Amino acid sequence: MSNAHPMSLSRTTQTRLVLPPDANQYGSVFGGKILAYIDEIAAIACMKHTGKEVVTASFDSVDFVSPAYVGDVLELEGIITSTGRTSMEVYVRVMSRCVKTGEKRLTTESYVTMVALDEHGKPTPIPAVYPETEEEEKMHKAGIERQRLRKEKRKKLKRDESRE
Amino acid sequence: MSNAHPMSLSRTTQTRLVLPPDANQYGSVFGGKILAYIDEIAAIACMKHTGKEVVTASFDSVDFVSPAYVGDVLELEGIITSTGRTSMEVYVRVMSRCVKTGEKRLTTESYVTMVALDEHGKPTPIPAVYPETEEEEKMHKAGIERQRLRKEKRKKLKRDESRE
Amino acid sequence: MSNAHPMSLSRTTQTRLVLPPDANQYGSVFGGKILAYIDEIAAIACMKHTGKEVVTASFDSVDFVSPAYVGDVLELEGIITSTGRTSMEVYVRVMSRCVKTGEKRLTTESYVTMVALDEHGKPTPIPAVYPETEEEEKMHKAGIERQRLRKEKRKKLKRDESRE
Amino acid sequence: MSNAHPMSLSRTTQTRLVLPPDANQYGSVFGGKILAYIDEIAAIACMKHTGKEVVTASFDSVDFVSPAYVGDVLELEGIITSTGRTSMEVYVRVMSRCVKTGEKRLTTESYVTMVALDEHGKPTPIPAVYPETEEEEKMHKAGIERQRLRKEKRKKLKRDESRE
Amino acid sequence: MSNAHPMSLSRTTQTRLVLPPDANQYGSVFGGKILAYIDEIAAIACMKHTGKEVVTASFDSVDFVSPAYVGDVLELEGIITSTGRTSMEVYVRVMSRCVKTGEKRLTTESYVTMVALDEHGKPTPIPAVYPETEEEEKMHKAGIERQRLRKEKRKKLKRDESRE
Amino acid sequence: MSNAHPMSLSRTTQTRLVLPPDANQYGSVFGGKILAYIDEIAAIACMKHTGKEVVTASFDSVDFVSPAYVGDVLELEGIITSTGRTSMEVYVRVMSRCVKTGEKRLTTESYVTMVALDEHGKPTPIPAVYPETEEEEKMHKAGIERQRLRKEKRKKLKRDESRE
Ligand SMILES: CC(C)(COP(=O)(O)OP(=O)(O)OC[C@H]1O[C@@H](n2cnc3c(N)ncnc32)[C@H](O)[C@@H]1OP(=O)(O)O)[C@@H](O)C(=O)NCCC(=O)NCCS
Ligand SMILES: CC(C)(COP(=O)(O)OP(=O)(O)OC[C@H]1O[C@@H](n2cnc3c(N)ncnc32)[C@H](O)[C@@H]1OP(=O)(O)O)[C@@H](O)C(=O)NCCC(=O)NCCS
Ligand SMILES: CC(C)(COP(=O)(O)OP(=O)(O)OC[C@H]1O[C@@H](n2cnc3c(N)ncnc32)[C@H](O)[C@@H]1OP(=O)(O)O)[C@@H](O)C(=O)NCCC(=O)NCCS
Ligand SMILES: CC(C)(COP(=O)(O)OP(=O)(O)OC[C@H]1O[C@@H](n2cnc3c(N)ncnc32)[C@H](O)[C@@H]1OP(=O)(O)O)[C@@H](O)C(=O)NCCC(=O)NCCS
Repeated sequence: MSNAHPMSLSRTTQTRLVLPPDANQYGSVFGGKILAYIDEIAAIACMKHTGKEVVTASFDSVDFVSPAYVGDVLELEGIITSTGRTSMEVYVRVMSRCVKTGEKRLTTESYVTMVALDEHGKPTPIPAVYPETEEEEKMHKAGIERQRLRKEKRKKLKRDESRE
Repeated sequence: MSNAHPMSLSRTTQTRLVLPPDANQYGSVFGGKILAYIDEIAAIACMKHTGKEVVTASFDSVDFVSPAYVGDVLELEGIITSTGRTSMEVYVRVMSRCVKTGEKRLTTESYVTMVALDEHGKPTPIPAVYPETEEEEKMHKAGIERQRLRKEKRKKLKRDESRE
Repeated sequence: MSNAHPMSLSRTTQTRLVLPPDANQYGSVFGGKILAYIDEIAAIACMKHTGKEVVTASFDSVDFVSPAYVGDVLELEGIITSTGRTSMEVYVRVMSRCVKTGEKRLTTESYVTMVALDEHGKPTPIPAVYPETEEEEKMHKAGIERQRLRKEKRKKLKRDESRE
Repeated sequence: MSNAHPMSLSRTTQTRLVLPPDANQYGSVFGGKILAYIDEIAAIACMKHTGKEVVTASFDSVDFVSPAYVGDVLELEGIITSTGRTSMEVYVRVMSRCVKTGEKRLTTESYVTMVALDEHGKPTPIPAVYPETEEEEKMHKAGIERQRLRKEKRKKLKRDESRE
Repeated sequence: MSNAHPMSLSRTTQTRLVLPPDANQYGSVFGGKILAYIDEIAAIACMKHTGKEVVTASFDSVDFVSPAYVGDVLELEGIITSTGRTSMEVYVRVMSRCVKTGEKRLTTESYVTMVALDEHGKPTPIPAVYPETEEEEKMHKAGIERQRLRKEKRKKLKRDESRE
Repeated sequence: MSNAHPMSLSRTTQTRLVLPPDANQYGSVFGGKILAYIDEIAAIACMKHTGKEVVTASFDSVDFVSPAYVGDVLELEGIITSTGRTSMEVYVRVMSRCVKTGEKRLTTESYVTMVALDEHGKPTPIPAVYPETEEEEKMHKAGIERQRLRKEKRKKLKRDESRE
């Protein structure tokens, strides 16, 4: 684990103005656009951590808990919570802020798994992350547990498929 | 259920060429772009079914099982599988096809939940869907089951939150 | 003609939501945007048929018979109707559907000629197409006739130019 | 004809750099992108002439006579050639210039018909155009003739349709 | 000055991946794209401070001191440094980071002046900013001085123009 | 100076319709978008003059003197005013025209410095420009003077930095 980095190295923030092309004709932002922003910020977090090309392996389920509108400001924040051999989990939170009232609301949060690739496009080992604060410690533990569950679920899926 | 529509009414397809702005500098398409396409096709399927504005409530977890590259052709297909009072589940499948070889591979598949809104932006009742073929029957049943599980999970979450 | 494909192989559909960037400030979609969508779908149809890079050689005249607006759903469908040695004609039809009323109208239809290129960017031979249904048979015949007329027109033009 | 404008009032030019999103993965610009640029410049020419909203009624057939590549400079020029009661014909020429060699080639030329709309979206009378130079005189005459032919063709088409 | 906000309230960051559409065909990012990002972040900083619509009044001169390439990560940071009655100065710094090497370089820095508008599009009074740290104090003082110089320069310009 | 070109060779114009994605939700165009257009036109002017890749070295200060709105037509014009060994100054003027009234107003003007690069990305010698009309003569002289001042300012800056 000589080559480990603190979680904070990967912390990445992005503040964006919601513009007409991000929204439908009622001014309500598309869920898909927000997922594209989440994917971009997760990729940047992983590129800072690994110094390598990364691809998205999976998104955990995502709930859009409140709408955002044209003219709102989106605040995204991403951080790597845990690492495997070649994959890592990134937590991304999206807040939207109404400019007029200053009111800030959670839009959505998401766990994205990214895999680092070598120059032949094959999964390649990455540095581990370690937490430095108590809050990070909690996130890290929960991340490891989620990675374990995801692996199990995938294994079970493959077993079921091969049985059919 | 006077006002029910067959599942097939909502069936929506989209064939897209992967272009440089959809991909990173290695020519590999972004997962987030694909999620944005899935969201668009799911919204269209729901607009055809309901004749109303719709918003994305949630995405179930999504696995990207094989990459797609600039120059590939993406084939997306969406269909409503089951309906609640104001929400509906859409199944979207994304295949990518290499133009040179003609080889077709599953990129990802996804279950998206959309909610219809009235003119005040409030959830509004929608027509039910009904299956017409055996395959649709299967999808419909599984969709109802997933909707039930999602509801339970959300209820449990709220209970846990109120306890804290 | 060992290497011929049925017309149906090239059939390509695309369903798109009209968004604010596709339209002027009155919400009316630009004719040029629709031509760009037609070109994309024609290119995909030809790439599926030939497995090669293709470029647009020409558009026959195009009439926009009814407008489309932001929030409408566009349904495009393209199919190769006839083939030459290196060129092929694609028929593309664009319908627009008002989401609220479900009303569907013809926006425009178009005949596009595409040419397949080899790795040096030179026109290269392509498989022929053959019709399988009566309707396709009709389209195929009419396509061959239009290709003949286009060639004649081009020949005449060149003759006139060389005379000047 | 008190309210007529010279053709030169509508003359509109546009110089554009061909960028990666305008082209396929071989760097060759899409025909559809060029048609979208032609439509934009034709609309601007008509807006300058009429001071009103305009929509595209038709494109005459378009031949792409030479390719353009990423890094080339496109030079577009549009001018109104003739007017009807509510419609006008715009001639647009597209040249591409290779930056390295300075070589300039015709990419395509096109005749676009636009119709001016009033605030209810209905066709509305427009000022006439008049030529001022000998070259413009020629373009004007040819434009009037093409407008006449287009009208005849449309009338014939309607007759044929009503007979069926 | 009851209604003053700390400088830190306006602090806004943005991390962006440089993608192919941001760059020329050599992969080198366009200066104009970076200015557009600077303008966006400055506008967001001012919207957070004022809760109002803002428009760009001016950019001070900008030097691009090192290039950025496709695949690099841009890190922008903006903060309001000083305020007038209706206008405010925002300092924006742009760093670029090479993902492979982790090397970080200054791309450019810029002073943007924005003006807040009321619902009739007229300049409207804004809250003042005040510094909280020593570094902010320095920025604040320098900002006030630059605002003074800009005003003088504009006054002199007007005098010269009226004399001509 | 065998290889000098007249200023007029670099003259480049661009007419653009302001579309919803160029503007905020009040329909007012972003200053940053206009700077991006200025940068594009300046780069094209320099590519025509040099036949080489160019990058933006600097923008002089820019004042936005009047707003432009969605539906307006922007008219940009760029011309090289003076040249150094590897760098050149381009003057760009942006007018906006209200389509309804025909009224034309200055939006902004700007002096951009671009540097030509060789195939290794290093600054490379460029042809000189020479004026042909009296007006160009004046622009040329003023351009030379501004280049001199910019160089001095940069030298002074470096001296100050090395002293710290
Ligand atoms: C992600 C991908 C590289 C994994 O390839 P693979 O052959 O399954 O590789 P491996 O089995 O060696 O798995 C590599 C790592 O990814 C993880 N992984 C694979 N699939 C995963 C999934 N769906 N969700 C989460 N993690 C996953 C594995 O657990 C493993 O983690 P570890 O090294 O930390 O233990 C491959 O599925 C792929 O290329 N998918 C497409 C990615 C892409 O292009 N996304 C963008 C849009 S399509
Ligand atoms: C289309 C193009 C490749 C044809 O090149 P060419 O030197 O004329 O080649 P050929 O004479 O061998 O013609 C090749 C085929 O194209 C057809 N063709 C050429 N020009 C055509 C036109 N304007 N309309 C329809 N078909 C045309 C020929 O009939 C021939 O068909 P066939 O092989 O089926 O008998 C060439 O004109 C070109 O590169 N144009 C630009 C294409 C492009 O880049 N378009 C996108 C935007 S600019
Ligand atoms: C163009 C359009 C307004 C014409 O409407 P219409 O009911 O046919 O109106 P009219 O019969 O009064 O014709 C109006 C003028 O347009 C001309 N026109 C109509 N269709 C035309 C066509 N396909 N090609 C050329 N001119 C056409 C008529 O000759 C007439 O010209 P004139 O007034 O100069 O004599 C209508 O077809 C339309 O709305 N089309 C869609 C336009 C659009 O939105 N385009 C963008 C992409 S869909
Ligand atoms: C512009 C750049 C190439 C200059 O490099 P450099 O090492 O300073 O090169 P030099 O000292 O040889 O200067 C080259 C020329 O540029 C001029 N120049 C350098 N910096 C300048 C500036 N900020 N403003 C105006 N001119 C400048 C020099 O005066 C010199 O002009 P001359 O040859 O006509 O006498 C370099 O700073 C750079 O790459 N910047 C980033 C450019 C870029 O990518 N912009 C887009 C977005 S970041």
